[in-house]
Amino acid sequence: MSVERHYDREFVRTFFTSPTAVEGEDDSAKMIRSAARLRGMQAPDVWVPDNEDATAPNMRDEGIQNIIDVVADHGADFPGEIHPRMVWHRESPGTRYQGFKHMMEVADPENGAIEHIDGFVIPEVGDIDDWKKADECFTIVENEYGLEEGSLSMSVIVESGEAELAMGDLREEMGKPSNNLERLFLLVDGEVDYTKDMRAMTPTGELPPWPELRHNTSRGASAAGLIAVDGPYDDIRDEAGYQERMTENRAKGMTGIWSLTPGQVVAANTAPLPPKTGSWLLEVGDEDVELTEEDGRQVYDGPDLSLSDNGDGTYTLAVGGDERTLDEDEVTEELLEMTSYVPSMNDIVDSMEEFEAAKAAGKGAIAMTQAATLVVDGVEVEVSKDRMWDEATYQAAQTPVALFQDVYEHRPDQHEELEEMYGADVVERATNVGN
Amino acid sequence: MSVERHYDREFVRTFFTSPTAVEGEDDSAKMIRSAARLRGMQAPDVWVPDNEDATAPNMRDEGIQNIIDVVADHGADFPGEIHPRMVWHRESPGTRYQGFKHMMEVADPENGAIEHIDGFVIPEVGDIDDWKKADECFTIVENEYGLEEGSLSMSVIVESGEAELAMGDLREEMGKPSNNLERLFLLVDGEVDYTKDMRAMTPTGELPPWPELRHNTSRGASAAGLIAVDGPYDDIRDEAGYQERMTENRAKGMTGIWSLTPGQVVAANTAPLPPKTGSWLLEVGDEDVELTEEDGRQVYDGPDLSLSDNGDGTYTLAVGGDERTLDEDEVTEELLEMTSYVPSMNDIVDSMEEFEAAKAAGKGAIAMTQAATLVVDGVEVEVSKDRMWDEATYQAAQTPVALFQDVYEHRPDQHEELEEMYGADVVERATNVGN
Amino acid sequence: MSVERHYDREFVRTFFTSPTAVEGEDDSAKMIRSAARLRGMQAPDVWVPDNEDATAPNMRDEGIQNIIDVVADHGADFPGEIHPRMVWHRESPGTRYQGFKHMMEVADPENGAIEHIDGFVIPEVGDIDDWKKADECFTIVENEYGLEEGSLSMSVIVESGEAELAMGDLREEMGKPSNNLERLFLLVDGEVDYTKDMRAMTPTGELPPWPELRHNTSRGASAAGLIAVDGPYDDIRDEAGYQERMTENRAKGMTGIWSLTPGQVVAANTAPLPPKTGSWLLEVGDEDVELTEEDGRQVYDGPDLSLSDNGDGTYTLAVGGDERTLDEDEVTEELLEMTSYVPSMNDIVDSMEEFEAAKAAGKGAIAMTQAATLVVDGVEVEVSKDRMWDEATYQAAQTPVALFQDVYEHRPDQHEELEEMYGADVVERATNVGN
Repeated sequence: MSVERHYDREFVRTFFTSPTAVEGEDDSAKMIRSAARLRGMQAPDVWVPDNEDATAPNMRDEGIQNIIDVVADHGADFPGEIHPRMVWHRESPGTRYQGFKHMMEVADPENGAIEHIDGFVIPEVGDIDDWKKADECFTIVENEYGLEEGSLSMSVIVESGEAELAMGDLREEMGKPSNNLERLFLLVDGEVDYTKDMRAMTPTGELPPWPELRHNTSRGASAAGLIAVDGPYDDIRDEAGYQERMTENRAKGMTGIWSLTPGQVVAANTAPLPPKTGSWLLEVGDEDVELTEEDGRQVYDGPDLSLSDNGDGTYTLAVGGDERTLDEDEVTEELLEMTSYVPSMNDIVDSMEEFEAAKAAGKGAIAMTQAATLVVDGVEVEVSKDRMWDEATYQAAQTPVALFQDVYEHRPDQHEELEEMYGADVVERATNVGN
Repeated sequence: MSVERHYDREFVRTFFTSPTAVEGEDDSAKMIRSAARLRGMQAPDVWVPDNEDATAPNMRDEGIQNIIDVVADHGADFPGEIHPRMVWHRESPGTRYQGFKHMMEVADPENGAIEHIDGFVIPEVGDIDDWKKADECFTIVENEYGLEEGSLSMSVIVESGEAELAMGDLREEMGKPSNNLERLFLLVDGEVDYTKDMRAMTPTGELPPWPELRHNTSRGASAAGLIAVDGPYDDIRDEAGYQERMTENRAKGMTGIWSLTPGQVVAANTAPLPPKTGSWLLEVGDEDVELTEEDGRQVYDGPDLSLSDNGDGTYTLAVGGDERTLDEDEVTEELLEMTSYVPSMNDIVDSMEEFEAAKAAGKGAIAMTQAATLVVDGVEVEVSKDRMWDEATYQAAQTPVALFQDVYEHRPDQHEELEEMYGADVVERATNVGN
Repeated sequence: MSVERHYDREFVRTFFTSPTAVEGEDDSAKMIRSAARLRGMQAPDVWVPDNEDATAPNMRDEGIQNIIDVVADHGADFPGEIHPRMVWHRESPGTRYQGFKHMMEVADPENGAIEHIDGFVIPEVGDIDDWKKADECFTIVENEYGLEEGSLSMSVIVESGEAELAMGDLREEMGKPSNNLERLFLLVDGEVDYTKDMRAMTPTGELPPWPELRHNTSRGASAAGLIAVDGPYDDIRDEAGYQERMTENRAKGMTGIWSLTPGQVVAANTAPLPPKTGSWLLEVGDEDVELTEEDGRQVYDGPDLSLSDNGDGTYTLAVGGDERTLDEDEVTEELLEMTSYVPSMNDIVDSMEEFEAAKAAGKGAIAMTQAATLVVDGVEVEVSKDRMWDEATYQAAQTPVALFQDVYEHRPDQHEELEEMYGADVVERATNVGN
């Protein structure tokens, strides 16, 4: 236990793998070089030149050479972190030894790559003792080339039942003097191999959703101060599905996701950031419909809800097939229940500043109000919601802002796009709030 | 390991926090005093004068004084248990020391409160070693004031990944001679802080559902002989949502829930008790519709199902858009599949008595029958369901009755309301069955 | 630690319990004998003459005698494995001792049954130390009668929170020299008693779904090299529900399920095998509708989707109430998103062979294409999907084939039915692929 955990990123949005040697050196050198040249929202937080699954087994020595060449040439200018994926397998000493030798090669200072390398990704880990074997390989590599012990970070792919269980032991094991597991960085779910390892089957062959695995990964990361990243989303053309998966993941505390294409990188870099403008949702049936703003009013224009003013102080509200006559208070109450608000970055910063001011004035809790004029079939209804904010609410609300600040600090190449997105004023306030 | 676990309640329905010192002593004294005066269904099983989140940080010494004053004055007459919440944090020794000093003050017999105090609630616990630190504070307090070791119970708020993991170790750790963890009482989920700790985000800022956390809490409680309680339900006006959450929780083995308002206390005290009268449900689409009893028949009166007797021995049944011609057996079978029955307290007691008699007569399993006349569009169909009861079914069915008996034993102030609800006869039979 | 794990089955589809002594010896002898005579798809992979819950407490000594008699008579010809369930309880030494004595009786070679017995099922286990007590009983029994240590397999019913937790320790504990836990075989969920132990309640008394328990059982089995089996499905007439439960289970890595009736045995033996013919699904609303093949085209014939060719290069597509005008590419894209394909056994074997050939030719990944002509309202649309196959995809796709091969190797009595189902040619190719 010789060093503090070395990484300074608290959030990682994108884990982008690119093949290192697919079919002949020319092509793969091209693919890996094009990944190295990504910038801004198109560049991932963590770039993973992949010498495991994305590279044919018989091309892996060439793959390592490609990694070295490309990182030596382009690593200095790459805006994210670089963590090549090595080969490793909990059940194959030969594969583990191959991974160790590859790390040695990449780390050799004479090859000119290691100064741009932040760590390595180790796939197919098993139980905690297997994680320690990998950690020991890192320590030997560091010692051999005079790198500080623990300075190379280690990310793992969780793709076996035993690795899932190992995540429950990390907090305890990371403190032990006989390992350098403080080098751990990302816990990445690998659902394809996990599905195989669990012998799971679906009729169409699509991946099971594995909600419990994702929870356990997120919890393991939280308990051990690491970062949880979800696995690849197979259907690369299904952008809506990728967005939905990320929304689900964020509700589980998993901010990062694997990206298989530059398009997925952009989507995943952007998704966890709060929107530029807030929006009102109306829950109709099982769906949340976003209302359209017109002159400061929120208009619902769909077939599933209708409202008419009967002129005698009562209203007729029909939701789906169900029609009721309500007075004004009842109709307001009813619509209020169906309404929710997605705050913008600006709204979140406003609320945080308001709470900070209240706290400075000695108040433990204040009510935050959200109000809107809803319009359904031309009938206007005013709704207004209060939410109590105390210290806990404040801190939970802070997560998206903390993410933004982490991005802003570590990715200067995204400043311009962030300012275009939010405006310079909001960016500045968001950068300063809560500190 | 000097004492047996001291608590004699096996179920806790309501965990009601009230602020101790919000903004100036007068107001908060009023709020805490009004909580102390609750009785019957309005009084919680566990009352938690809250000196943590519900009290501003700079008012916490005053909060402790308020707790002492109010408990000394009203504690003798309060019908539930009293477990004040102290400050504590796994990452702050200063906060832990403050919590310890507060417990000392409350426990000082000269202050006249401790004889009415059943235990303390410790928020923000971390891994199992942190739980042990808290336990040691309790032991010192007990020793200092001549209380029996382990006599003060300890409930914790689970609001971090490491605390969630710790619940897997409780059973093993509670037996060790170097601690008094047998004092553990409630495992309470705290979803607001947990969400922050997991860095989870939702678009609208509402809390994620955290099904795995609730499962793990329930399982931890079951394995260690403790009681699992779900966290606060933020939207205090959404009574239907609170009911739905409690139904979900009970299916997870989590009977208790946090209550933020006296209204939530009443709802949560009542919800886990079996209904006065049974009811038939018909599953139409994804919804269970409760049928209306008319002259002993169960009538469906809605738009999603229609049935007509074709006069030639066939029937036309339309569910949603899907219309089919069926003979009498088929239509009976079809409706039977859609039907389920929610037994009343009386039904459960009947079934238990019937099984007990059969067992006494040497039978291991008997069939229980539920029958009804369904009416759809004026057409009558007789349905009848058998369910095999063996020892395991009997014991699983016993849970609501065991809950009722626990309530009846510990909450004499609720006897009158229970008798009003069920009638004296059912109350008496329910009190005696299964013992 | 004297022997390797003895079992050679990697998959168990059916865990079929039959009562051993219900009400008088004649009847129960009949029931147990009829179970012993099952063959082919009607015979389970694992037959469990049940001397616990399915037998009245006062009949359990007679039950053991029945087991011995029937297994001695019919065991040699029974095509599956035989694992009688003994009595056991983590909280009752008397029950544990009774179970031990029963095992001794069954194992006595003079009784003629043990040579046909593969192991015993132990219900109501607690934490890992309780599993070790049961294991020690097996070891004593083996030693007493000169059986090889570890040769009797042990399956457990997981029906308590502590047993659920114990599954996280198996991998570590099974290696220890002081036990023979390598004898472990099946981890079987027992949801009725688990529900009681967790004190869970549902309004109608039906079992909660317990998704987390099933995940943890599946993961525990995967990490320790065991086989996970889901518990009984109560509503024995609800065949669609049983199928749905099995589909869910397989997506969790739980291939086996408890069967309470011969009808459930057939359903559960067949369900995990890939279908004879592939089929196209169209997702409309929340449902997957299977398309009808007509002359090689896939026809949708339902009310929820309509398509018309406007004759000007545009199409009108209506999904539910939502109608849109799209050009040809858009309509193709739209329908492609809604479409999925359930591959047949033949398709899976084809894909595996194709990938194996590509790998032999030095390729790490190839695209597999699925194409179809969809017909909606007479309008034809060609859709085609590519899926990238790499080594991981190949291995995950292999699971149903590995299951088939396991069945084919161990159940010669099912060969005829498998050949009827798939044809001899497909059976032969499926038997050989991947080896």
